[in-house]
Amino acid sequence: MGIEQSSFIKACRGKNEGRIPVWVMRQAGRYLPEYRAVREKVSFLELCRTPELIAEVVRQPIDRFGLDAGILFSDILTILEPMGAPVSFPEGGPRLENPIDSPEAVKWLHDFDIEKELAFVPEGIRKIKEILPDLPLIGFAGSPFTVSCYLIEGKGSKAFDKAKRFIHAYPKTAAELFELVSSVTERYLRMQIEAGADAVQLFESWGGTLSRDDFLRWSVQPTNRIFTALNESKVPRILFVNNLAPYTDLVSGVNCEVVGVDYRMDLADAQRKLPGKSVQGNLDPAVLFGPLELVAAKTQMILESIDDPNRLIFNLGHGIQPGAPVEAVEMLVKTVHEFR
Amino acid sequence: MGIEQSSFIKACRGKNEGRIPVWVMRQAGRYLPEYRAVREKVSFLELCRTPELIAEVVRQPIDRFGLDAGILFSDILTILEPMGAPVSFPEGGPRLENPIDSPEAVKWLHDFDIEKELAFVPEGIRKIKEILPDLPLIGFAGSPFTVSCYLIEGKGSKAFDKAKRFIHAYPKTAAELFELVSSVTERYLRMQIEAGADAVQLFESWGGTLSRDDFLRWSVQPTNRIFTALNESKVPRILFVNNLAPYTDLVSGVNCEVVGVDYRMDLADAQRKLPGKSVQGNLDPAVLFGPLELVAAKTQMILESIDDPNRLIFNLGHGIQPGAPVEAVEMLVKTVHEFR
Repeated sequence: MGIEQSSFIKACRGKNEGRIPVWVMRQAGRYLPEYRAVREKVSFLELCRTPELIAEVVRQPIDRFGLDAGILFSDILTILEPMGAPVSFPEGGPRLENPIDSPEAVKWLHDFDIEKELAFVPEGIRKIKEILPDLPLIGFAGSPFTVSCYLIEGKGSKAFDKAKRFIHAYPKTAAELFELVSSVTERYLRMQIEAGADAVQLFESWGGTLSRDDFLRWSVQPTNRIFTALNESKVPRILFVNNLAPYTDLVSGVNCEVVGVDYRMDLADAQRKLPGKSVQGNLDPAVLFGPLELVAAKTQMILESIDDPNRLIFNLGHGIQPGAPVEAVEMLVKTVHEFR
Repeated sequence: MGIEQSSFIKACRGKNEGRIPVWVMRQAGRYLPEYRAVREKVSFLELCRTPELIAEVVRQPIDRFGLDAGILFSDILTILEPMGAPVSFPEGGPRLENPIDSPEAVKWLHDFDIEKELAFVPEGIRKIKEILPDLPLIGFAGSPFTVSCYLIEGKGSKAFDKAKRFIHAYPKTAAELFELVSSVTERYLRMQIEAGADAVQLFESWGGTLSRDDFLRWSVQPTNRIFTALNESKVPRILFVNNLAPYTDLVSGVNCEVVGVDYRMDLADAQRKLPGKSVQGNLDPAVLFGPLELVAAKTQMILESIDDPNRLIFNLGHGIQPGAPVEAVEMLVKTVHEFR
C-alpha cells in the first residue's frame, strides 16, 4: 500500500472512507518509558541532531500504539542557532542566550545555508523512511509568529506580552524579522519534503494570544505565504492553531488542506466553519489523566459529533503531557480505530 | 447625580444614551508612578489589608484619568488564607505554601467567618465611598475555577494543566472543592455589596483553558450559582471571561448583566451573540505600548464597530501591564469620551 493510499493522507485530502487515522502531538515524548530511556543517554539537543536516534524515537509510539502517522522528531526552534540566536533546552523549556529585546538586536540575526547547517534534519527523515517506508511522515516547523515569540521573549511565557508589545512598538522591524523567519521556514519545510516528508505541519502555538486584526497580519499572512510557496510540492499542509475559535473564519482562507484544532472549540463546529478543509484534533490532553472510561467516552463524543468523518484526523487538541498514562493513549487509539 | 444615573451603571443595564463609560482592568497598578510610590512604603499584602491605602490607590487613576468607575483594590486570592491556604506575593506572582496537590489535601481547607477574617475589605469599600461618594464602585472576586487553579497549581501557570488533570482524575473531590470556594465567594461578594459596592465582577481568568463541556461544568455552573444567589441585591453583575470566543453561546446563558470580553474576539461579534447583555472591553493591552495614534485608531475601530453603544462599557481586554505609558491611557480615555 503506497503512502497516498494511507488513511492519513486520504483524510488530509478529504477522501478517506476507511478507518479514521489517529496520531498524537508530541507522541515521541517523555510520557513514554522507551523515550525516557533514550533521553537518559543523550540530551534533548543531541537527540535532535542524531539521525539514528531521531528514527528510533519516531518509531517508538508507532510500534507501541499502531498510530497512522509519524512526525519528525525535532524542535520548532532548531532554526534559531544558525540564524544567530543560540537556544538551550534545560528542564522547563527553551532558553535563548540573546533574546531580541530591542529593534537593534534584530540585526544580529542572519540567513544561513540551511542544507549545510541543518543537515541532520533531512538525514533523520531519510533514516525514518528506511525503517518505516510505509508510514506517512509529517515534517514540521513553527509559525513565524510563534518562533518570533521565543526570539523576543527568550523563553516560554503565559501570553508572550513582550512579543506583542514589540510588534506594536516596532512594526517595521517586526516585519523584517518575520520576513527572515518566514523565508527560512519556507526553505526548511521544502528541504523536509525533498528528504521524504509526506505532509507538513506549521505550529501556530501562540498566535492565539492576538487580537483578530493582528492575527490576520502576523499569523495568517506569513503562514499563507509559506504554504503558498509549497504549492508545487503537492504534499498536504496542516496548520495547527492553539486557540482557533476567535479566528476560524480568518483561518478558513489559509492555503492549506488541514487545520489542527485545539481542545477548546467543538471540532464539528470547526469543520463546518472550514469548508473544503479537513480537521485534525481535538481531545483535551488533560482528559488522559482521568479514568479510561472517560478517555473512551470523550473520544467517542468527538467522533460522533463530526458531520464528515472522511475529512477527520484524530489527535489531541495540544501536545501530550509528561506523566500521561500509556494506557490512556491505548484507549484513545482503540476507540478511534473501532469507530468505523 | 446618583450612582444609578451614572453612565457606567446605565450602560450595565443597557440604557446609557450618553457618553460611553470607560475603566481599565488593574487601573490601580504598577504602571502608575503614584501607585509605585505607595508600594515603596508597603507590601502588596499590607496594601490590600489597609483600608485608607486601599481608598488612596483606588482614587489615583480616577483623579488622573477621569475614569467612570472604580474597582476595589484587592486580590482574587484574598479568600485563601482564612480558608487554610496561605498565599504570598513575591515579584512574579502569587505563591501558595501548601498547594492542593492531592485529593486528601482538600480536607485542609475550611469555611471561615468572612465578616471577621476579611473585615478590611468592607472597611476599604466604606473608605472609598467616603472620599468618592459619586463614583460607581465595582467589587470583585475570582471565579471558582480560577481560584481553584491557583489552589491546585500553587502559582501562576501557562495552561493550568495540573488543575485540569485534577478535575478529570478526582471529579468528586473537585466538586467538593468548588462547592466550598463557591459558597465563600458568594458570601464574599454579598459582603462587598452590603458595604457599598455598586456592581460586582467575577474574573474567569483561566476558564478559557477548558474544553466546552468542562467550561459548562466547571465555569458556567458555579458562576451562575453565585450570581443567582445575588439576584436580590439588584446590583449589576459582570462576568469577565479571558478567552470568551469558544464559549460565547454558553456564557449567554449566565445570569448576569454584563460580559467582559478579552481582546481576541471582536467586541461587536460578542455583543451580537449575547442578546440582552451589555459588553465590556476590549482593547489589547499590548497596543498601549505602540504609538499614541495606534491607541486612538484601535480604540476608535472598536467603538465604531459596536451595533448598540448603549450597552457598551469600554475597557482593555485584559489587565493593564506594568510599564504601559500613562499617555496611552490618557489617549484611550479621551478617544472613548469624545466618541459621542
